[in-house]
Amino acid sequence: MKLASEILVPRGFEFSSATAGIKVSGAPDLALAFAPHGAKAAAMFTTNRVVAVPLQCGREHLRRTGGRVRAVVVNSGNANCATGEKGRRACDQVCRSVAKAMDCREDEVFPASTGIIGVPLPAGKLIQAIPQLLAARAADADAAQRFARAIMTTDTRMKTASARFGRATLFGACKGAGMIHPRLATLLVYLFTDAEAKPRELRELLHRAVHVTFNRMNVDTDTSTNDTVLLLASGEAGVAKRKDFAAALTAVCESLARQIVADGEGVQHVVNLRIEGARSDGEASQVAKAIANSMLVKTAWAGADPNWGRVLAAVGYSGVPIDPNKVDISFGKFQVCRKGVAAAFDEEKVHTYLSQPVLDVRVRLGRGKVGATFWTCDLTSEYVHINADYHT
Amino acid sequence: MKLASEILVPRGFEFSSATAGIKVSGAPDLALAFAPHGAKAAAMFTTNRVVAVPLQCGREHLRRTGGRVRAVVVNSGNANCATGEKGRRACDQVCRSVAKAMDCREDEVFPASTGIIGVPLPAGKLIQAIPQLLAARAADADAAQRFARAIMTTDTRMKTASARFGRATLFGACKGAGMIHPRLATLLVYLFTDAEAKPRELRELLHRAVHVTFNRMNVDTDTSTNDTVLLLASGEAGVAKRKDFAAALTAVCESLARQIVADGEGVQHVVNLRIEGARSDGEASQVAKAIANSMLVKTAWAGADPNWGRVLAAVGYSGVPIDPNKVDISFGKFQVCRKGVAAAFDEEKVHTYLSQPVLDVRVRLGRGKVGATFWTCDLTSEYVHINADYHT
Repeated sequence: MKLASEILVPRGFEFSSATAGIKVSGAPDLALAFAPHGAKAAAMFTTNRVVAVPLQCGREHLRRTGGRVRAVVVNSGNANCATGEKGRRACDQVCRSVAKAMDCREDEVFPASTGIIGVPLPAGKLIQAIPQLLAARAADADAAQRFARAIMTTDTRMKTASARFGRATLFGACKGAGMIHPRLATLLVYLFTDAEAKPRELRELLHRAVHVTFNRMNVDTDTSTNDTVLLLASGEAGVAKRKDFAAALTAVCESLARQIVADGEGVQHVVNLRIEGARSDGEASQVAKAIANSMLVKTAWAGADPNWGRVLAAVGYSGVPIDPNKVDISFGKFQVCRKGVAAAFDEEKVHTYLSQPVLDVRVRLGRGKVGATFWTCDLTSEYVHINADYHT
Repeated sequence: MKLASEILVPRGFEFSSATAGIKVSGAPDLALAFAPHGAKAAAMFTTNRVVAVPLQCGREHLRRTGGRVRAVVVNSGNANCATGEKGRRACDQVCRSVAKAMDCREDEVFPASTGIIGVPLPAGKLIQAIPQLLAARAADADAAQRFARAIMTTDTRMKTASARFGRATLFGACKGAGMIHPRLATLLVYLFTDAEAKPRELRELLHRAVHVTFNRMNVDTDTSTNDTVLLLASGEAGVAKRKDFAAALTAVCESLARQIVADGEGVQHVVNLRIEGARSDGEASQVAKAIANSMLVKTAWAGADPNWGRVLAAVGYSGVPIDPNKVDISFGKFQVCRKGVAAAFDEEKVHTYLSQPVLDVRVRLGRGKVGATFWTCDLTSEYVHINADYHT
């Protein structure tokens, strides 16, 4: 499935952003997506036991409406997580105010928050900015980009992707640079389409796409408390072929997942990690996660270091009962480990290969026939600087 | 159990070191511990599926002798891991040469290697240094220290601990600074005593002590391929009270574990992580590991950042079904999170507290009555530098 090179705005959606004053930088920190005639919805949330307030609220709203959304409202700069009853009241106030301004039901508003955990959400600031949001909304690419920018936190780049399938279009926007660990729907991801589908169909399509995209990436070890993926379908382009819809959805999600990893905090090398010869998808995933979470493997990648022994050691402690004597490892076209021992390779050439910004790492387990691709990155001093100094 | 302030050398052991020329630095890289009249032995090894050659060999030797050891020979600078059949032949050659020189059986030699993975072991260099080893051996504190220094790799400090129980003494020496993740007996640890005990008793005592010491520490996410803990008992001081032996063993192991974390690669803050209110030891361990492995928590500690939200998020994704509304978090005497939300605390004071080199972090889960203490550390730019540049 080929992605569109420009932003495509699906019929039936308007976008907007505003500056509520939560971000100290003065950058836009409030975003709105509005479906004037409503949209069918499916969502996936974090599997963290600590769940941010807007996720609890959004889940309840979807349940009450049976999967219908009119307005999506997102603030950045504050996660509204670990904020207790006060946080819930703040979220409800914001939803109520948006519902009133947009003339819809409160439970048709789907809220989200992203930023620091444990700080009270200043609902007043958000509510004051609603008139700004209303005035600025539009159904064009510029407005869609403003939406995508206003949800950013430590992201350095806006992340969007679009695809066309039949008469329908799909637009996706997301944010995320740290606290990225694939155990679920990851971070804030919004997917808009004008294809027609029932909530149950949307759920099935979304689960499948997320499984092979957002659940297969990693920047660090940390699963967020606020992860949300939301798919909205206005239906204004009519019913599309399910196969085409699924392909477009997976392509857009994969593009967004890759953009997240490429913009990961401090990232200097993006790694396309291919696991082959597993007995199941679960096995491939387990091995990939052990490699992708290894501080020693990630720092070796930062140093463009052909230290395949660290990769092998991570495969060994992954929990999958591999036989070390069957494991092959390649960096790009260079095989560095054959049947568990060093292959003959030119260290200098491999070092040069590993110095590139995007790397292919392939691990063959020799157990079965299942393969899977993951997207991960290195661990740099810059990551430490960003995260040692973020809060204070 | 109070540790001895000086090194105590148990009767029945001699120690030595030599320079075989594996380390480029020219530092001593070959160590010997010798029990002229033999010693009863118990050992624990890595749970990594990728197991270094000397571990396979040492395990076989212990099985063949029924747990008896005469000589322990350790080289640093090369892990003899992922080296295949050649690596096995190199290890056997070294054991055979040591056995010949010490006039004992080959399977009474217990080998170990530590250093880089995947590089052939230069057996010739080791064998050539054996006469040096023989000449330098002695049964005094100076020789014991030379043993402890020769097993170091990226360690910046020698790590030893001694205790007295009844008429017996216990001496422990270990190495380790990176690839430290508690899933087993961790790294190279040697424990010598002159108490008398059967191999089965030694195994029981060792398992218990390791469970609450080396299995409760962490520097990074990585479980080594070469982890070995060996306990040797010469019996020359006769039978000691089991309770006293167990207490001495746990105290020495705990001291060594803390020394490893304090000397962890790039470590600026050592963290005593106390988990309370768990339903089981396994639960406490699972939560502690999630916190200790979190790159975001570790970088917050590096920045002396009172960001308790990251700790709470890690508790949430640990896999233990905690109720966030029951979780309390304290940094030293400062409670920063009460029942899942921010407690009132002075950020400046907490920042000052977190700037100290040793920190107490306490997490109460509110689920049960079990508590456990772990030793972990921060993640600094220095860790990244060390590990991005180690190989090339």
